Amino acid sequence: MIKLRVAMIGAGVMGKAYSLAIASLPMYVWPTTWVIERELVVELTPELAEEARVRYGFARAATDWRRAVEDPSIDAIIILTPPREHAEVALAAIANGKHIVCEKPLATSAADARLVYESAETAGIVHQVGLNFRLAPAVQMGLKLLREGAVGEVISYRGSWLTDQYLDESLPYSWRSERGGGALGDDAPHAIDFAHAFVGEITEVVATSGTVITERASAVDQTTSVVEVEDEVNLLMKFATGQNGTLEGSRVAAGRKVTWGFEINGMNGSLVYDWERKEELRYYDARDAPDRVGFRTILAGPSQPGGEHFWPVACFGTGYAETKALQLLQFGRAVFEDQPVDTSFSEGLRVAEVIEAATRAADTQSWQRVAHAGAAAA
Amino acid sequence: MIKLRVAMIGAGVMGKAYSLAIASLPMYVWPTTWVIERELVVELTPELAEEARVRYGFARAATDWRRAVEDPSIDAIIILTPPREHAEVALAAIANGKHIVCEKPLATSAADARLVYESAETAGIVHQVGLNFRLAPAVQMGLKLLREGAVGEVISYRGSWLTDQYLDESLPYSWRSERGGGALGDDAPHAIDFAHAFVGEITEVVATSGTVITERASAVDQTTSVVEVEDEVNLLMKFATGQNGTLEGSRVAAGRKVTWGFEINGMNGSLVYDWERKEELRYYDARDAPDRVGFRTILAGPSQPGGEHFWPVACFGTGYAETKALQLLQFGRAVFEDQPVDTSFSEGLRVAEVIEAATRAADTQSWQRVAHAGAAAA
Amino acid sequence: MIKLRVAMIGAGVMGKAYSLAIASLPMYVWPTTWVIERELVVELTPELAEEARVRYGFARAATDWRRAVEDPSIDAIIILTPPREHAEVALAAIANGKHIVCEKPLATSAADARLVYESAETAGIVHQVGLNFRLAPAVQMGLKLLREGAVGEVISYRGSWLTDQYLDESLPYSWRSERGGGALGDDAPHAIDFAHAFVGEITEVVATSGTVITERASAVDQTTSVVEVEDEVNLLMKFATGQNGTLEGSRVAAGRKVTWGFEINGMNGSLVYDWERKEELRYYDARDAPDRVGFRTILAGPSQPGGEHFWPVACFGTGYAETKALQLLQFGRAVFEDQPVDTSFSEGLRVAEVIEAATRAADTQSWQRVAHAGAAAA
Amino acid sequence: MIKLRVAMIGAGVMGKAYSLAIASLPMYVWPTTWVIERELVVELTPELAEEARVRYGFARAATDWRRAVEDPSIDAIIILTPPREHAEVALAAIANGKHIVCEKPLATSAADARLVYESAETAGIVHQVGLNFRLAPAVQMGLKLLREGAVGEVISYRGSWLTDQYLDESLPYSWRSERGGGALGDDAPHAIDFAHAFVGEITEVVATSGTVITERASAVDQTTSVVEVEDEVNLLMKFATGQNGTLEGSRVAAGRKVTWGFEINGMNGSLVYDWERKEELRYYDARDAPDRVGFRTILAGPSQPGGEHFWPVACFGTGYAETKALQLLQFGRAVFEDQPVDTSFSEGLRVAEVIEAATRAADTQSWQRVAHAGAAAA
Repeated sequence: MIKLRVAMIGAGVMGKAYSLAIASLPMYVWPTTWVIERELVVELTPELAEEARVRYGFARAATDWRRAVEDPSIDAIIILTPPREHAEVALAAIANGKHIVCEKPLATSAADARLVYESAETAGIVHQVGLNFRLAPAVQMGLKLLREGAVGEVISYRGSWLTDQYLDESLPYSWRSERGGGALGDDAPHAIDFAHAFVGEITEVVATSGTVITERASAVDQTTSVVEVEDEVNLLMKFATGQNGTLEGSRVAAGRKVTWGFEINGMNGSLVYDWERKEELRYYDARDAPDRVGFRTILAGPSQPGGEHFWPVACFGTGYAETKALQLLQFGRAVFEDQPVDTSFSEGLRVAEVIEAATRAADTQSWQRVAHAGAAAA
Repeated sequence: MIKLRVAMIGAGVMGKAYSLAIASLPMYVWPTTWVIERELVVELTPELAEEARVRYGFARAATDWRRAVEDPSIDAIIILTPPREHAEVALAAIANGKHIVCEKPLATSAADARLVYESAETAGIVHQVGLNFRLAPAVQMGLKLLREGAVGEVISYRGSWLTDQYLDESLPYSWRSERGGGALGDDAPHAIDFAHAFVGEITEVVATSGTVITERASAVDQTTSVVEVEDEVNLLMKFATGQNGTLEGSRVAAGRKVTWGFEINGMNGSLVYDWERKEELRYYDARDAPDRVGFRTILAGPSQPGGEHFWPVACFGTGYAETKALQLLQFGRAVFEDQPVDTSFSEGLRVAEVIEAATRAADTQSWQRVAHAGAAAA
Repeated sequence: MIKLRVAMIGAGVMGKAYSLAIASLPMYVWPTTWVIERELVVELTPELAEEARVRYGFARAATDWRRAVEDPSIDAIIILTPPREHAEVALAAIANGKHIVCEKPLATSAADARLVYESAETAGIVHQVGLNFRLAPAVQMGLKLLREGAVGEVISYRGSWLTDQYLDESLPYSWRSERGGGALGDDAPHAIDFAHAFVGEITEVVATSGTVITERASAVDQTTSVVEVEDEVNLLMKFATGQNGTLEGSRVAAGRKVTWGFEINGMNGSLVYDWERKEELRYYDARDAPDRVGFRTILAGPSQPGGEHFWPVACFGTGYAETKALQLLQFGRAVFEDQPVDTSFSEGLRVAEVIEAATRAADTQSWQRVAHAGAAAA
Repeated sequence: MIKLRVAMIGAGVMGKAYSLAIASLPMYVWPTTWVIERELVVELTPELAEEARVRYGFARAATDWRRAVEDPSIDAIIILTPPREHAEVALAAIANGKHIVCEKPLATSAADARLVYESAETAGIVHQVGLNFRLAPAVQMGLKLLREGAVGEVISYRGSWLTDQYLDESLPYSWRSERGGGALGDDAPHAIDFAHAFVGEITEVVATSGTVITERASAVDQTTSVVEVEDEVNLLMKFATGQNGTLEGSRVAAGRKVTWGFEINGMNGSLVYDWERKEELRYYDARDAPDRVGFRTILAGPSQPGGEHFWPVACFGTGYAETKALQLLQFGRAVFEDQPVDTSFSEGLRVAEVIEAATRAADTQSWQRVAHAGAAAA
């Protein structure tokens, strides 16, 4: 059994998700010729690092991410730090020839994202951004239907990314209150990624944005700081292939927990998805007979792409952790089997470019073109 | 334009529904060679009768139903009295050769229902019971699919008839508190009719029943009486064609308003319906490809049977009043065009026979055979 | 009983809806001191007019709408002509002192809408636009909750108006293919009206639009014409009170029949509505305890505003025709009881102003201010 | 860190679920003073055992379950064999003083279940049956509401356990085709357990049952055998506390994948649940104001019982594997912290007694009393 020895930088909630994914991967995907080995976990203090080691099943613990990325016994780095540190850690890992999984967003500016992407490509490492939602079997089934032409030519796209966590005024000030961490920077990447996956290149955007809770208190000393970022954002988008679309992102949408989804209207049908019912894809096939046509609720299970790894029955429980396992499955297959990674840094860069244009569009109140780096846009 | 002159006996809520249906019928179904004319309305007092005449658009008002059924200027009688009077009024109308629409239940005993049915047949009049729910376009679409074999051979049937009106302790004592007016007698007829329409003859039943609010006060003098009937009833049923089924009837099901529907499982598919979403039929076609099969939500509109009369768009509003119009459409077509009536007294009798057996089954706590009159069972 | 004698100009599908509403109004709303009398119906040919007279229960038929608006035996005019004729007919009716119900849109330009509105105000007639969807009991319940503060201060608004009728390439060229008859002019008025009702004045818009089926054949001679209008439109909107919003209008959204609704997010809750489930309002009250909070599905019935007129049970069938009855109820009460009309020409003008700005925004690809006439904006 | 060293007997799909649960438990529930250690896995052949060892992360592999239950380095046994072997393995484990987790059903006869339960009690071991569905946070929230009186006194109960796996004629003959493995024996235990958890002791049942696919071929040699068990079963139930209920179990319900749930109607409200939307509990509180009352959809997350261990956001993915982790959490807490086990062998026995009575009721076509062992019924 070949081993892919990873160092995980950061062990918060995302660390839990990745550790679960690593532990479960061979249980789900079997037989296999390789496994991911939890070699090293890095946290801010020795106590946190040791706790994470035991809890998440790593062999070693450390506090210095730089030594981790230089460690010759490590094959790959999983970057789970706050977003503003992503680029620095990634560049160091690239310099050491490590393969990389970086949580979204790839970086907090398009320029950084481009630098990271281009460096990774030059170095020839395997790279992946944690845009796992598109890997859910129900979403992959949507892509399969789309590619088969089952909804015909796409006419329009509506994306939404709604939650209500930030209506809670007691939520402390954090990196999510700072530039790059708002509804656009932190929440929208998956939504933009869905739009890229289902329709393609976004060329122009216009936007509104707003901040509802304008100040938050520090969790440490209760001092109050002004929130730098938007709580909600609306976009109109134009796609290179001619479609129009909208994107609504909000973390102040009362009652919405994970309304993360899309609605795609084509000439022959429609696809609707929403993470609150993550194992359901709604599909309308206009070619069904007129008296019995209707949106179908497809229940994701072993018959949908990726679902074959989990349970023999549909709707048995394929959620966040399972999509992280599917993400790491692609990562390992890229390293050992020369398979493609759907959500490489290229996708992370594309997302960053849209966010940058959307930010400009909101600031200037005008349509803005999305700048595409040649290679990335290819 | 030929006219079918009707006398309507009773002008409560059902009178409103029938009057609307009569007024709307030519607006919906056009062109037509005949119309129903609101000739005479009968209520308990001259004041009530005159008010109903003006409100519901009748030509004349009266208080004596016997004179109405003898009136030579009347072609048909619509019986909307309390159920225990149905048989008497119907027999008088039959004796005078009038065509009859009788609200459900046809009678409060199977014996009376049989007498009324047989008298009507002998007299050769057109007769109809107000089992209008099966005429909803979404339900008719279900029947169409079933008859086409779109769900394959039927395996099992689940019916439900749930509302919560009787959880209200202040609801006064009425005929609905008396024998024949409970969950079985008053609520279940439509549910039993659905089972008849979708599967066929019920041969045996076993039942439980319960009364939750055991006393109610008179609306007139506040004296309290013991409720004679069940608030909720559960049935297991066996059908002549071998299927098993269940029926749950309750008027004390909190939160349920008009959960009146069915679930039919066949070898190749399934049909699910519920009046709370009355313009939706859920249909599963197991022959769809395994990766894209799922319950379809068919939205009832002009493409479903009967829906062509209403609006050019689905889901525009086809509710109780519209199914009453469809019921009267069948009645008029039977009188003038020799068309069949789906819900003739024969269906009312079949319902009464099941109710009688179910009552015995609840009383004796044992399986009971449903007694079928030869002709009715044909 | 006082009578409001109406002339109805146009007797297509909308004529059916209005005739039903008139016939049903006293049946639903009783007691009453006034009724609407179907005095005169006007159609293009004597044959059509006479057919409409019989079918819809009018006393007289005619072909010349000018004589109808001058007819001293007529108290009010119901204008159901194609939109481009609305202004001319309305101005003539105003000149003759008739009260007016005009189907939406009030006019095909903001200038015409303003002229009609101001003329009507000057003449002192009662005027109403057929923006009936906001009168549905479930929608009115939403407004009641909003006004009570049950969702707190409004943060954002999402409107949608989706149908798929125009995906049918065989649908003939009509006024709906011409300027003023597209997704913006014909479909969006109700959606814009919802936004006005729930949030208020829209001050700026930006838009995209697209035409999917670019040519349609004449139903008469099969000659092909270029479709002048958009099949789908997306708007970002800013409200005078600071909120942002979106509006998606499409008549090429496969599988959508009447997805006409809204989603309103407030500081304490949310409201969601959609005409496909027209008797359901979804309401989230963030003040419910955290372990048992959730979107409630309120089933519209006698407990919701306007619902008291229909049936004693929720979800019994309150659709398009019933909201038209509620609209005429307001009209009659304005004429005879000095009650307000929620959807007066002022609302029709507001809608026209937004449509005009949205059209400019789509044409110029830039944010456009909505021009508000002083009085209308009040 | 204390260790609970387990031997897992059987490593099919259930082995995957338990292995995942063991691996994830400390990741989810932290801090902890104990962990479960995957010490030994037993399969039929050395090859299967070794494969399971690697795949599921066990230290050792073996083929003889008798030596496993005698192994002094083992603290607890997880029994995942076919049901007919449960009793034998359990009795041997009890004889060796091991704690036991036994997958449902506890045994294939009530007598065996009683023997196993009483032996376990006498031996003083910790024992648990794998009735994990009731541990889902949404279900536990339902129990919490019920116990608080949030739905008032319970009036009626409806359970369902529907799937369509056995409509597939090519599904081979297996222990699920043999006595104890049908809709009653294999599918109904969770459904009966729900009824026990939410209402209490079932005292009498009546039943129908049917077999749809009457013969199946061996997967080994294609010889055909007659299916001994029912594919679908319907029950009427009476509870000791006076309620009536129904239970519908089917593995031939087209379109149903995991429609495993309940509907509970009380004097003040209702609870509805279904595993197909496993993170949603529908709750109706009749005490809400009449104009805004409605079924709430509670999205299960950190605010519902048990959900605090998983993710900080609701609806993130809490499925089958996670309820198995919650089950093992109870097991470990019982061993090390003297906490109660909700689904001890007592519950397994209660289920077996109902199944036995239901089988008799179907065979005799009459109401049958459920025999309760004194201790178990306590």
